[in-house]
Amino acid sequence: MIKVGIVGATGYVGAELTRLLHHHKEVEISFLDSRSYAGMDYGRVYPNLRNVVTDQCISINLEENLDDIDLLFCALPHGLSQPAVKKIYQKKKKVIDLSADFRIKNFETYETWYGTKHEALEELHAAVYGLSEIYQDEISKAQLVANPGCYPTSILLPLYPLLKENAIIPENLIIDSKSGISGAGRTPADGNLFAQCHENLKAYSIGVHRHIPEIEQELSIAAGEEIRIQFTPHLIPMTRGILSTIYIPNKQETKLQHIKEIYNSYYEEQPFVRLLEENEYPQTKAVSGSNYCDIGIKIDDRTNNIIIVSAIDNLIKGAAGQGVQNMNLMFGFNIDEGLQQTAMWP
Amino acid sequence: MIKVGIVGATGYVGAELTRLLHHHKEVEISFLDSRSYAGMDYGRVYPNLRNVVTDQCISINLEENLDDIDLLFCALPHGLSQPAVKKIYQKKKKVIDLSADFRIKNFETYETWYGTKHEALEELHAAVYGLSEIYQDEISKAQLVANPGCYPTSILLPLYPLLKENAIIPENLIIDSKSGISGAGRTPADGNLFAQCHENLKAYSIGVHRHIPEIEQELSIAAGEEIRIQFTPHLIPMTRGILSTIYIPNKQETKLQHIKEIYNSYYEEQPFVRLLEENEYPQTKAVSGSNYCDIGIKIDDRTNNIIIVSAIDNLIKGAAGQGVQNMNLMFGFNIDEGLQQTAMWP
Amino acid sequence: MIKVGIVGATGYVGAELTRLLHHHKEVEISFLDSRSYAGMDYGRVYPNLRNVVTDQCISINLEENLDDIDLLFCALPHGLSQPAVKKIYQKKKKVIDLSADFRIKNFETYETWYGTKHEALEELHAAVYGLSEIYQDEISKAQLVANPGCYPTSILLPLYPLLKENAIIPENLIIDSKSGISGAGRTPADGNLFAQCHENLKAYSIGVHRHIPEIEQELSIAAGEEIRIQFTPHLIPMTRGILSTIYIPNKQETKLQHIKEIYNSYYEEQPFVRLLEENEYPQTKAVSGSNYCDIGIKIDDRTNNIIIVSAIDNLIKGAAGQGVQNMNLMFGFNIDEGLQQTAMWP
Amino acid sequence: MIKVGIVGATGYVGAELTRLLHHHKEVEISFLDSRSYAGMDYGRVYPNLRNVVTDQCISINLEENLDDIDLLFCALPHGLSQPAVKKIYQKKKKVIDLSADFRIKNFETYETWYGTKHEALEELHAAVYGLSEIYQDEISKAQLVANPGCYPTSILLPLYPLLKENAIIPENLIIDSKSGISGAGRTPADGNLFAQCHENLKAYSIGVHRHIPEIEQELSIAAGEEIRIQFTPHLIPMTRGILSTIYIPNKQETKLQHIKEIYNSYYEEQPFVRLLEENEYPQTKAVSGSNYCDIGIKIDDRTNNIIIVSAIDNLIKGAAGQGVQNMNLMFGFNIDEGLQQTAMWP
Repeated sequence: MIKVGIVGATGYVGAELTRLLHHHKEVEISFLDSRSYAGMDYGRVYPNLRNVVTDQCISINLEENLDDIDLLFCALPHGLSQPAVKKIYQKKKKVIDLSADFRIKNFETYETWYGTKHEALEELHAAVYGLSEIYQDEISKAQLVANPGCYPTSILLPLYPLLKENAIIPENLIIDSKSGISGAGRTPADGNLFAQCHENLKAYSIGVHRHIPEIEQELSIAAGEEIRIQFTPHLIPMTRGILSTIYIPNKQETKLQHIKEIYNSYYEEQPFVRLLEENEYPQTKAVSGSNYCDIGIKIDDRTNNIIIVSAIDNLIKGAAGQGVQNMNLMFGFNIDEGLQQTAMWP
Repeated sequence: MIKVGIVGATGYVGAELTRLLHHHKEVEISFLDSRSYAGMDYGRVYPNLRNVVTDQCISINLEENLDDIDLLFCALPHGLSQPAVKKIYQKKKKVIDLSADFRIKNFETYETWYGTKHEALEELHAAVYGLSEIYQDEISKAQLVANPGCYPTSILLPLYPLLKENAIIPENLIIDSKSGISGAGRTPADGNLFAQCHENLKAYSIGVHRHIPEIEQELSIAAGEEIRIQFTPHLIPMTRGILSTIYIPNKQETKLQHIKEIYNSYYEEQPFVRLLEENEYPQTKAVSGSNYCDIGIKIDDRTNNIIIVSAIDNLIKGAAGQGVQNMNLMFGFNIDEGLQQTAMWP
Repeated sequence: MIKVGIVGATGYVGAELTRLLHHHKEVEISFLDSRSYAGMDYGRVYPNLRNVVTDQCISINLEENLDDIDLLFCALPHGLSQPAVKKIYQKKKKVIDLSADFRIKNFETYETWYGTKHEALEELHAAVYGLSEIYQDEISKAQLVANPGCYPTSILLPLYPLLKENAIIPENLIIDSKSGISGAGRTPADGNLFAQCHENLKAYSIGVHRHIPEIEQELSIAAGEEIRIQFTPHLIPMTRGILSTIYIPNKQETKLQHIKEIYNSYYEEQPFVRLLEENEYPQTKAVSGSNYCDIGIKIDDRTNNIIIVSAIDNLIKGAAGQGVQNMNLMFGFNIDEGLQQTAMWP
Repeated sequence: MIKVGIVGATGYVGAELTRLLHHHKEVEISFLDSRSYAGMDYGRVYPNLRNVVTDQCISINLEENLDDIDLLFCALPHGLSQPAVKKIYQKKKKVIDLSADFRIKNFETYETWYGTKHEALEELHAAVYGLSEIYQDEISKAQLVANPGCYPTSILLPLYPLLKENAIIPENLIIDSKSGISGAGRTPADGNLFAQCHENLKAYSIGVHRHIPEIEQELSIAAGEEIRIQFTPHLIPMTRGILSTIYIPNKQETKLQHIKEIYNSYYEEQPFVRLLEENEYPQTKAVSGSNYCDIGIKIDDRTNNIIIVSAIDNLIKGAAGQGVQNMNLMFGFNIDEGLQQTAMWP
């Protein structure tokens, strides 16, 4: 049993963390920090957890009172995360950060894409990128884990192994991703209003989305060379889920069987990656509410392309669930503890 | 550990049973019966359960091979349920039936509203109405439980105690219910198509819905006199959830405090009924995916009415979840075993 | 051809006015006033009107430059409307106000329910309540029309004639209304976020909604006595549409035929009220995008109640469309000019 | 004023034709043919048109009674369209066919992709592909127009001019399209149920969708060489709309200005193609209910790709609206007659 605090507990990612950790057998939640809702019962901020999570939100002072805590989840917006993580890290506490602040190794790249100075370079240097299935060994020894972004998770799980094993040539990678609206968070804005999003569909931030450097960093590591991707995110009128459709020129005429073998070697022992049969493609509903990443493969001989489709729940495998998975790695718990829940249907 | 079979396992209620029972610690699923999908992997019929439920659907012969089973869930459509339950019952097996066939004590009332003969009168006579919180003692001793309908559950949990304790006078009860589309099942029809239901809202079956006799039967038992209700169901463009808005003339000028005391005496020890604070009203999202029934109360002194609003997940507390709760009662398991899952938000 | 200005043109009601007036053959739009979007192309604020409405938003000064205008639509929030309408009215200009500020004849009632002083009593006194089908004569002569609220329109069109003709006794009226999210407007707030509303359903403001005094005022006029209603609004996960389900004790045993005759005498010559056949009930999709109000009737002999269901598009018949209809009355245009558009299906 | 009949008037495309033609000033609808709903009031099959379209559905015999008709719209499923169009064509009547049966010039290609023999080769030879903006001259003289598919329209309008003018090199074209559920039609099936599609998202028919040969045929004509595309359709939980995201390697380093000039030369005089500003991208809501095709362009210098995004209403510009536009061309009506309606917002 470990004691865990959540900083920024009333955003959507914080809420998913709270729900997942509440059901986790090895965890006791020590505090739910929230500046906006301090003093309010958590079960009124998130009425799904009424009578379940009976804590009040508090506004925590990170300089004090962390002595009791074994782990902190930091679910603050990027920028705000830096000073918080820095304080926690300096106190030698384990921390899993869910912002973008510690994902990008090259701080200049971070500063270019995020338009803000990086003020915690020591911590950045120490951070382990928390793509659970790929970096499990590093994560299990880390003090600071930078939890991956939602789009990157949906893209790296299928692409990393293929690049690492030289099954594809990393040129002209096109990634067309589709996300539910919860990815925009709970802060009210014109762009996440019901009446603006419902029965609507659009592309946004084409070629300039901030997840691009994170994706390229990891693909470049896998490939051993610098990679550029074409990435287009879309907003879909649903609450949860990301579907990424990935187009790869099949220059080496790689066979389906070979791709399957690579995936099996990476993921057969991993409970959260499911490989679909030929001519089956993932759907977000099948993973929604779960920590799964479903992957489907099409080798199109007519066009000589490989198309890979992946689906995740953006708030679980794409955020809080992967965070819990990383915690399980860091503390030696069963990898699926607290994460056995499957999607509902319908 | 008991062995359980599901007859009609590929409808939406059957699918929820399968999912819930898979996660239940005291249950081993023996078979998943389905005529339409016999021979097919369950995880392809319900891709949320891929790699999780690894059974194939089979078309079971109820005359044979039931010897091993401790309990059967029968999730067939009404009418079809009668012969199946009859066979199971005659073999002295415990059975929880999720159709309407054994809910209505008066077979003539059944025949009038359902337009079909009742051919299993012995079983009908033996059946216990499975409203878990109200009939827990009877259920725990029953061989055959008739699991309540979705609308009735949302209505009886708030109304039964008030009538039983004479807190309200059972005249001019108006019940305006709203249901998600999954209540219409998985059989394709014009009325449950996406393009017909989405961004649409309608009332249907006003005064003639088949759940009326079931609701009136139980309210009459509670009140000790025959009761008629005005019941109007509506179709809401969402997948899951029922919200019932109940209007009661407050002829006795009952106070909020008295209603709360009654609810507390019935439900304080019950984990699945949550009473909201004054001026708070339930929302379906807060119960979706859970076995909760949330209840909010308004005493309107200006109009001298009591308004009660309840919310449930139609497929869980309104069907499969209450079925599992009844199983827990019948076998002496913890009442919330397999049912601890909370709703997600968002 | 008249010249029309819109004050508050970039809220959802202002946007519908702009769209409808753009297609109106007798109207030229003089200006689209908006404080928030002043200087911006209207077609970028509302991309459906790109290349169609080519005006820029401007922030108008009501003290000046109104000389050219024949009519102003005022689509400001309640409270803000009072000073604006006052200025316009004092300049002897015709004005249709879409806020609540001039709907409630008794200013003390207004002040109680809206929690703000009324500072334009002369204008309040002069205002005609713009329920088009009922007050057509008064509207056609009015200088200031107070356009009805969305819920009131859906309730008054079916109830006013029945009370006026003594077909029902105005006791124990229960009105259960359901509205799409666009009724909450375009100002971002937690309550109108996609992820908070989608796949969710709730009641709100039970017995205290601000449309209650407006509804009661008009029903009392119709009945010739003071009437109280029980009114419960609900939020439905769709963008547009209101469905009101109205429960009336049928104390006089009024027959369906009599109700139909009353409706025919009021509405046969009116193009925008459609009476449905027996056992047919309205659905919001059938009126969405149109100025129709569809009405269905059920006489339930089993319970001795009359149930009436009405459906409107909250932004059209419940706001901008009825505003245009009132303009047509005020200027002697064809009653359906600019309003012939039907709903789409699907 | 011309007389027009609709064959297959009760599918979704037939319903949109009926609605659009009802509002068209130069058209009188002669009959609404429907096998399934023969004898039923059209306003009960499509309640949006209650009291508006007062015709009954009839089951027409194409051998007789066509003498009076100036034009037939044939909105039958592919395969069924061949014999119907053949009969109409042989009677020297003008016909616009909305199925796939006459779109693909090479009958063997048709037979391969559609798995059915082509039995109307003379008519196939005579048919003009009805992409209105591109083939306006041919359409205006045609007896038989093969109305384009929904996906192809959204793809060809942006791509045809660029290929024709050699602004891009037609290699490695990736087209990722997203469609609302109405594209699946009104015939009930598991795949178009509300509960299967809502809050869900998936890819389907990757590399094998039947619109591929139609798209490739037209792109090949534009390019003057045989072209293959990678095409992936996705199902989006909304009723209407198609968004196509098109990826083109920018091998010639074409500038944005050049692309704009090409589009302007093709579309400046065309009312239904709207070009967006730099860094603006289309959304389906802005075109839903209208005949517009909105196009946005991104030149990504970082990756050296051109990304083009287009949005249409699949049932209007992608079917019935383009059909009406083609009728306007064939009869010399104003090109936008009956098609001036804009999208609503929200």
